[in-house]
Amino acid sequence: MKTYATLIALAALGGAGLWAQTPAQTGPVMPLPAEQAFGGGELTLSPNLAIELSRDASPRLRAAVQRLREAWSRQTGIRWSESTEGAAPAPVLTVVCDRSDSALPGLGDDESYTLTIDSHRAALHSARDAGALRGLATLTQLATRGPNGWSLPAATMRDAPRFAWRGLLIDVCRHWIPLPVIERNLDAMALVKLNVLHLHLSDDQGFRVESRTHPELQRLGSDGHYFSRTEIAEIVAYAAERCIRVVPEFDVPGHTTSWLVAHPELASAPGPYQLKRQWGVFDAVLDPTNERTYALVEEVMAEMGGLFPDAFMHLGGDENNGHQWTGNPGIQAFIREHRLTDNAGLQVYFNQRLDAFLAGRGKRVMGWDEILHPELPRDAMIDSWRGTAALAAAARLGFSGIMAHGYYLDHPDSAADEYLNDPVPAGSRLTAAERSRILGGEASMWSELVGPETIDSRIWPRAAAIAERFWSGEQVRDVGDMYRRLALVSARLTEAGVRHESNHEGMIDHLVDLNTAPGERQALRTFVDLLEPEGYHRVEIQIWMNQGTPLTGLADVTRPDRGPARAWRDAVSHYLFAPGALDRGAVAALAAPLDSWSHAARVVLAMGGRREYPALREAKVPAEGVLAAVAIAQAALNALADGRVLSREWQIEALATLDRAAADNLSATNLPFLPAVRWLTLAAGAPAAARRPGEPDWRARLEGRTPPARS
Amino acid sequence: MKTYATLIALAALGGAGLWAQTPAQTGPVMPLPAEQAFGGGELTLSPNLAIELSRDASPRLRAAVQRLREAWSRQTGIRWSESTEGAAPAPVLTVVCDRSDSALPGLGDDESYTLTIDSHRAALHSARDAGALRGLATLTQLATRGPNGWSLPAATMRDAPRFAWRGLLIDVCRHWIPLPVIERNLDAMALVKLNVLHLHLSDDQGFRVESRTHPELQRLGSDGHYFSRTEIAEIVAYAAERCIRVVPEFDVPGHTTSWLVAHPELASAPGPYQLKRQWGVFDAVLDPTNERTYALVEEVMAEMGGLFPDAFMHLGGDENNGHQWTGNPGIQAFIREHRLTDNAGLQVYFNQRLDAFLAGRGKRVMGWDEILHPELPRDAMIDSWRGTAALAAAARLGFSGIMAHGYYLDHPDSAADEYLNDPVPAGSRLTAAERSRILGGEASMWSELVGPETIDSRIWPRAAAIAERFWSGEQVRDVGDMYRRLALVSARLTEAGVRHESNHEGMIDHLVDLNTAPGERQALRTFVDLLEPEGYHRVEIQIWMNQGTPLTGLADVTRPDRGPARAWRDAVSHYLFAPGALDRGAVAALAAPLDSWSHAARVVLAMGGRREYPALREAKVPAEGVLAAVAIAQAALNALADGRVLSREWQIEALATLDRAAADNLSATNLPFLPAVRWLTLAAGAPAAARRPGEPDWRARLEGRTPPARS
Repeated sequence: MKTYATLIALAALGGAGLWAQTPAQTGPVMPLPAEQAFGGGELTLSPNLAIELSRDASPRLRAAVQRLREAWSRQTGIRWSESTEGAAPAPVLTVVCDRSDSALPGLGDDESYTLTIDSHRAALHSARDAGALRGLATLTQLATRGPNGWSLPAATMRDAPRFAWRGLLIDVCRHWIPLPVIERNLDAMALVKLNVLHLHLSDDQGFRVESRTHPELQRLGSDGHYFSRTEIAEIVAYAAERCIRVVPEFDVPGHTTSWLVAHPELASAPGPYQLKRQWGVFDAVLDPTNERTYALVEEVMAEMGGLFPDAFMHLGGDENNGHQWTGNPGIQAFIREHRLTDNAGLQVYFNQRLDAFLAGRGKRVMGWDEILHPELPRDAMIDSWRGTAALAAAARLGFSGIMAHGYYLDHPDSAADEYLNDPVPAGSRLTAAERSRILGGEASMWSELVGPETIDSRIWPRAAAIAERFWSGEQVRDVGDMYRRLALVSARLTEAGVRHESNHEGMIDHLVDLNTAPGERQALRTFVDLLEPEGYHRVEIQIWMNQGTPLTGLADVTRPDRGPARAWRDAVSHYLFAPGALDRGAVAALAAPLDSWSHAARVVLAMGGRREYPALREAKVPAEGVLAAVAIAQAALNALADGRVLSREWQIEALATLDRAAADNLSATNLPFLPAVRWLTLAAGAPAAARRPGEPDWRARLEGRTPPARS
Repeated sequence: MKTYATLIALAALGGAGLWAQTPAQTGPVMPLPAEQAFGGGELTLSPNLAIELSRDASPRLRAAVQRLREAWSRQTGIRWSESTEGAAPAPVLTVVCDRSDSALPGLGDDESYTLTIDSHRAALHSARDAGALRGLATLTQLATRGPNGWSLPAATMRDAPRFAWRGLLIDVCRHWIPLPVIERNLDAMALVKLNVLHLHLSDDQGFRVESRTHPELQRLGSDGHYFSRTEIAEIVAYAAERCIRVVPEFDVPGHTTSWLVAHPELASAPGPYQLKRQWGVFDAVLDPTNERTYALVEEVMAEMGGLFPDAFMHLGGDENNGHQWTGNPGIQAFIREHRLTDNAGLQVYFNQRLDAFLAGRGKRVMGWDEILHPELPRDAMIDSWRGTAALAAAARLGFSGIMAHGYYLDHPDSAADEYLNDPVPAGSRLTAAERSRILGGEASMWSELVGPETIDSRIWPRAAAIAERFWSGEQVRDVGDMYRRLALVSARLTEAGVRHESNHEGMIDHLVDLNTAPGERQALRTFVDLLEPEGYHRVEIQIWMNQGTPLTGLADVTRPDRGPARAWRDAVSHYLFAPGALDRGAVAALAAPLDSWSHAARVVLAMGGRREYPALREAKVPAEGVLAAVAIAQAALNALADGRVLSREWQIEALATLDRAAADNLSATNLPFLPAVRWLTLAAGAPAAARRPGEPDWRARLEGRTPPARS
């Protein structure tokens, strides 16, 4: 068995510079390992590569090694046999775990590992299973094709996470998300080293777990769409196999309409209640002055605490608007009698009782910002959807917490925006002790606007960038390098069975039919990649939306943060703002894709006018927006290339046109390349002498909305 | 409960003409129902459509109804709740099964059903679960999008299969095919009403089931790739849920190298034996003169007979070349002593013993043509890979049999070829009694050249056309209409999770990298859709191929019988051979795609010359073939349009060029549009007066290889 000392020695062979890390040397792995260095050479991935595991490796570790083989096979086409009978032929990958077991994963598990690869062998070493599995995820991402076939690059890595809590929330209430989708997302989480699956299991729109003690909850509160107890056990086991914890959330006392369908007597206002089919904040709230409320909630929580073995139980606690409490004289009397001050005090009272109940059963509670209160026991944990200040306030009060704000995947924020959002931003004034209470963060996939067919495309690949934020050092902030590696990991995710790419053609099928010409389909592909869906604001545009609305419209087919629009915007930004003169040669490259964008928009516009494509009617406004914006961009690029200054009148008209193209439209999609057209418009109207790339005031002036005065 | 009489009455409402069937009225369903008529009107598929099941419906039927809801949801985006609490709002789909139970499916189960749909309601009726499930498969295919949204067409159907045995063989030995692939193929089979999954479980390259009595078989004979007993139980249950039988095949006495690795003492020539990594017919064969052979085989067969509850056990029996028996004096002495005449007689002796053993355990044996012998008990069944004559001979001898010949999916035969191949061809001279012994057929997916990533694209959608051959009447032979419906069912298969389409981009990824420009990728898509893979002949071209060769080459990325090449070939055929004058206007349509084909070939040729695309080097010959053939086609089309006659010299040169393009090349791909270019070449060299579309001798002359003499 290889010892840690051997590995250190191997690492030392590379000399001091070995651990140095420059952008050119970041390799393919996401999240970026804490320390890595690539030497020369490579280890050939041939079918006779043997993987050696020590005899005492747990079944979990053996299964993970088998998944590595399968992942490499999917990527390379090479097949490895599981058998290690007989003399193993070199080369060899050795996996050594000091204490391998199949214990349930827990907060703070040791996830560190070291990995060394030279041209003859590779060695992965960890103290525990969790570290070994993280190292295997790294290996999954290291296979590289060169002119001589597939290999692993010679490398030395010493890796461990920055944060212990690296989660993904999946809301299975607003739209039902069945088991296979959960399982493939667990596979994806394992690949990028996320370690907490937070399941949002009850809300106004559904109670999504089978309760044995109160079967009326799922019977009346789920439309038949809920996880059976067997399925929950399967999810927990599937996650544990990947060293991923599962934290259940049962949102109380608000967001409880689904409970009240069966138990209207526990509401704070008279029933009956029906499942909500729309989204938003509703009045329905449990009555915390009714002892029967505690009887029910505690029975259910006790049962669910058994079903979900994790130490944490999430009680939600968000968005109780208090209307029912304010309107109920008995509840107001209770508040006065118990000197609870106000509705907020009543919610603290409710939380304290549940906290005490669950603490007695060995559970720690967590909840959204709203549960934060000085009187709450300090073992409660805060899940902050409100942001840095709220999380810092919790940490100062002595609460542990995680950051959810800025990682909401239902918003079409770019991966870059999410990536640069830090749970403990640079310049934070928290003390070391306070910082240590910020345990990490969670990417959140709220499901008002996604179903099983589209959820993958909203989570991935962006959640991989968030995973890097949680795992890698705070100084790792090179957005360009992140996107380079994100493209690589996205391909690995597809191979692992995630459907963010492979479902896309099926989504396009919803817009067209079998008679659609290949050229039309290709135009539609190009077009939808120029668009992105609205976030939650969509429900204010498509006001008819409810749980029954098919998620097959143009907004559903589009995806956030797509490459073509992003690459063009970045290129325009570089052309205008990078230090040095405007590079006339770059104009041709910037103009190159625009004709194909116009062509695609014209084709889609024509299709939308035809009877057989009713779903493309709503493409009219964005397609016209593409055409108008491209014409403006072309005029501006021509002027910039020729050193001409476009008129103030032209500029005002162009900016108004761009404003219209950026306005809300019924398709609930946006054109993320418009800001770059706006830059070009402003630049083309600036006097040639005032065009000063690299100077901050030039960029600031362009980003202002007012056209500069003519000189 | 609705009675059968009610349904008949409903059907009668449509009048006598209701059952008439014309090509324009064949609707979307594949296999084509035995009797169907479409009335006017439609039943709207709204979210409030209720599905009513009688209270005594089996869990299997309830689950199938739930799958119907899910399939419709995937297609339409509409979600249906499982709940039927409270008053069901109209419209309603009623599912009535006279005797619903969850018995294991068996040969000859009643699979008939009737279905009536009007603008207010739909009613499915069957005698047993199997029929109800077949009717639900029909409903899955009936959802249609019109200008007013999704609906089912008003229709009346009375349906039952022509053949009782409608199988799909999957070989899991040559390449390992794991559980998820089997399950998604079972879903696909259910959609097109195939009812037998034939698993080829042991061969020279692997023994693919866990044996409890002889664990050494899978331990030494599978590289760790085998179904556990639990997985087999899961497959059998998954199939039974869909009223699909599972027939296991353990191929003996030949094709047994994988057994002999652990038991060389049972071979007919001295060992040791190692798993075969290549394909073909090998000498290794069990020794039927050794009582220990029977002890082992019978123990394994008894165990497997318990694991697979179906009444049939397939013993293979094919391709024993007899070399080991001929070379073994003891075996030859045994033949003489037992008056067995020759090696064939010895195999009959072996089969009789196994037949008697398995008959004693309630099993019927089946095997390939080679087991056929007058002395074999008549309850044995013949699986004919040799064809019509062999199957007819078996039927005349009194044996039941099924047709495998002509349905080998490892060959790139077109769906049309497979579709027109009939187990009992028109003109068969079999008596009615003999015909009744031909129970159906099986599509066979031998896995020498497929792995988990490509197998779907070889099976589907072609197996749907074969399924129609087995289900629908022998008079159903309209190839054009078959392809129209095949495109529809292919989309339903994708929605059901089959990966013949959705894995394609991943296959293209094997040829390119992340820096490949979108235009290059699109050219590659166009190019590979002009190609088809070689069949089994590939192993004679790529002689280095073995089990370890990655299935990621150009041949693996191409797929059989793709639309663009087929559509063009059909259009050329129509232009040249349809009655009437050559239509000059058609030339423009025929020429239209050719430029994009040349463009694609040029792009791929350039990519293949670059260092980063080693996998595209082998595209050189087919890409040059496309370029040459397109140039010839363009010249010929121009000449035909202008009424010019191209010279005999040009024609000879062109035909030689086409011959070279059609020759074997190292990529092991072919260009299925070449025959149409050949027609054009010959037509363009014929005197204008001799160009007589619609006259048989004109086509016959063109299809001859000799250019016509100049007039």
